[in-house]
Amino acid sequence: MNHEFDAIAKLFQQRTPLQHPTTRIGNGDDASTHEIPQGFELVISTDTAVQGVHWPHNMGLDIAGNRAIQAALSDLAAMGAKPAWLWLSIMATNEHDLQQMSHGIVQACQQQAVELAGGDTVTSPTNAINVTVGGLIQKNKAMRRNNAVIDDDVWLFGDVGLSAAGLNQWLDGEHDGTFVPHFQDILPQLEQSQSLIDLAIKCCIDISDGLLQDAGHIAKASQVGIIINIENIKLLPSYAKLQHLGDEQVLKHILSGGEDYALLFTAPAKHQLTLSQLGAFKLGHCAQGSSVHLCYDGKTIDYNIKGFDHFA
Amino acid sequence: MNHEFDAIAKLFQQRTPLQHPTTRIGNGDDASTHEIPQGFELVISTDTAVQGVHWPHNMGLDIAGNRAIQAALSDLAAMGAKPAWLWLSIMATNEHDLQQMSHGIVQACQQQAVELAGGDTVTSPTNAINVTVGGLIQKNKAMRRNNAVIDDDVWLFGDVGLSAAGLNQWLDGEHDGTFVPHFQDILPQLEQSQSLIDLAIKCCIDISDGLLQDAGHIAKASQVGIIINIENIKLLPSYAKLQHLGDEQVLKHILSGGEDYALLFTAPAKHQLTLSQLGAFKLGHCAQGSSVHLCYDGKTIDYNIKGFDHFA
Repeated sequence: MNHEFDAIAKLFQQRTPLQHPTTRIGNGDDASTHEIPQGFELVISTDTAVQGVHWPHNMGLDIAGNRAIQAALSDLAAMGAKPAWLWLSIMATNEHDLQQMSHGIVQACQQQAVELAGGDTVTSPTNAINVTVGGLIQKNKAMRRNNAVIDDDVWLFGDVGLSAAGLNQWLDGEHDGTFVPHFQDILPQLEQSQSLIDLAIKCCIDISDGLLQDAGHIAKASQVGIIINIENIKLLPSYAKLQHLGDEQVLKHILSGGEDYALLFTAPAKHQLTLSQLGAFKLGHCAQGSSVHLCYDGKTIDYNIKGFDHFA
Repeated sequence: MNHEFDAIAKLFQQRTPLQHPTTRIGNGDDASTHEIPQGFELVISTDTAVQGVHWPHNMGLDIAGNRAIQAALSDLAAMGAKPAWLWLSIMATNEHDLQQMSHGIVQACQQQAVELAGGDTVTSPTNAINVTVGGLIQKNKAMRRNNAVIDDDVWLFGDVGLSAAGLNQWLDGEHDGTFVPHFQDILPQLEQSQSLIDLAIKCCIDISDGLLQDAGHIAKASQVGIIINIENIKLLPSYAKLQHLGDEQVLKHILSGGEDYALLFTAPAKHQLTLSQLGAFKLGHCAQGSSVHLCYDGKTIDYNIKGFDHFA
């Protein structure tokens, strides 16, 4: 831990008093320590959000703080892990901005009942938030990208495209736009993720870069083809909600919008009924190959809109 | 994991192939997973370094990358933990800078034999590096700030003041200055830290903000007074090395220079001989009180130079 954090550590500790039962030494020392229960694995992921890159300059820093935590937790959902702790680095241009970001961060920690186990706060010419999240999962139960197999169905939990529509509204100056909350308020699919673990689902990813690009990560890692049917896309609630944009724009938002934090996963056919009852949407299936194909009326169609890629 | 990392993930994976025996799922999925051996606790710390704040703008980014890793590992040394994994967020203004920082990061991972278990890479108006480090320690063995007791001696492992002297040389344009390597090449006291664990030492901190300020953290957390004898300070090798600066400047460098990454710890008197043989330096002792006092010729002296404090 960096001692620069001391200045606001009290504020944080008062407002995030939660300590996970595994924690032996919590926030306030050089590091935190945790005892992992037998039969469980530790799951860790880290994520950074930068002002002007991951959220617009004129958006509230409390919202940015909340988003940073929720987005990081989405990576745990993708693995099937239950969140336990997080470690935070806040880079702030001044103390006011620090307080604003902190406000949203505390809110998210409380909402998701995650322990703030450590962190540092540093001055920086740019506001940015790094969140490392840790969670627990039963041994050998973690869902991975490389576990899709041919004939698995491809499924979705959550909305796609609405976040991109919200960001566009914000950037167009419609700060009260209907879709803006879908960009601002990330809801990691943590409960849905536990349902998948209960069903012994093996392959999952969270959609941060866009449905097609993240499906591509599964296809490549698992060495399967992923067939997504436009007919299924058109049945998504998101499709109806975005229909005023016109077919082409709706598809673009849904297939490559990004920042959806929905879960894309594959499952054996036997789970079809259960998954539908749980509120998941079937998008297609896995076949031979190692890339993603869109299908309409039984035919493969060309589609080359890629998701967001830094340094691309 | 953020998929933006994919662009250089291969580079990293090729050059940091090491996987810790605990790791079940390594770099390349949404998160990494690890199985903690029975009888051990997980130890985690996070740290951020920002260009122009934590290292000078005109310093090599490979050096900055190396420093960021080593500084983070120093927090594990402070707890007595053995490093196992790290998770990385690189914020880079362009691909060239990203490559430069990566170079130093890879070098440090190799040197310290730590697994790069995940991370992301994002564009940012400011170059910055966040490192979360994880390690293992036997149950209930971690050294803490709040374990100092009255009559403990106060000890130091490592140099103090040389890093500050090196930074000053750099800022004065003496880029080949004798002390510059002490600022650039951080050597976390990992082996010394294990010696302390072997001796069942209970209280330790790493000196990042300056000797006096970090001693203050122990004093406050442990509710003991910490008496540091100037006579002992004058016996430090660092004192001799800096003597050309004149007494006042030497003291300033040693007592509040910062970024030393030395270990300050307290130990019962019975360990005096062993600790001296291990190369530690005795600085003073713990007494009643809750703050730090400098002593010369048996009398308390005034000294009010504080360490570096962001947002202070």
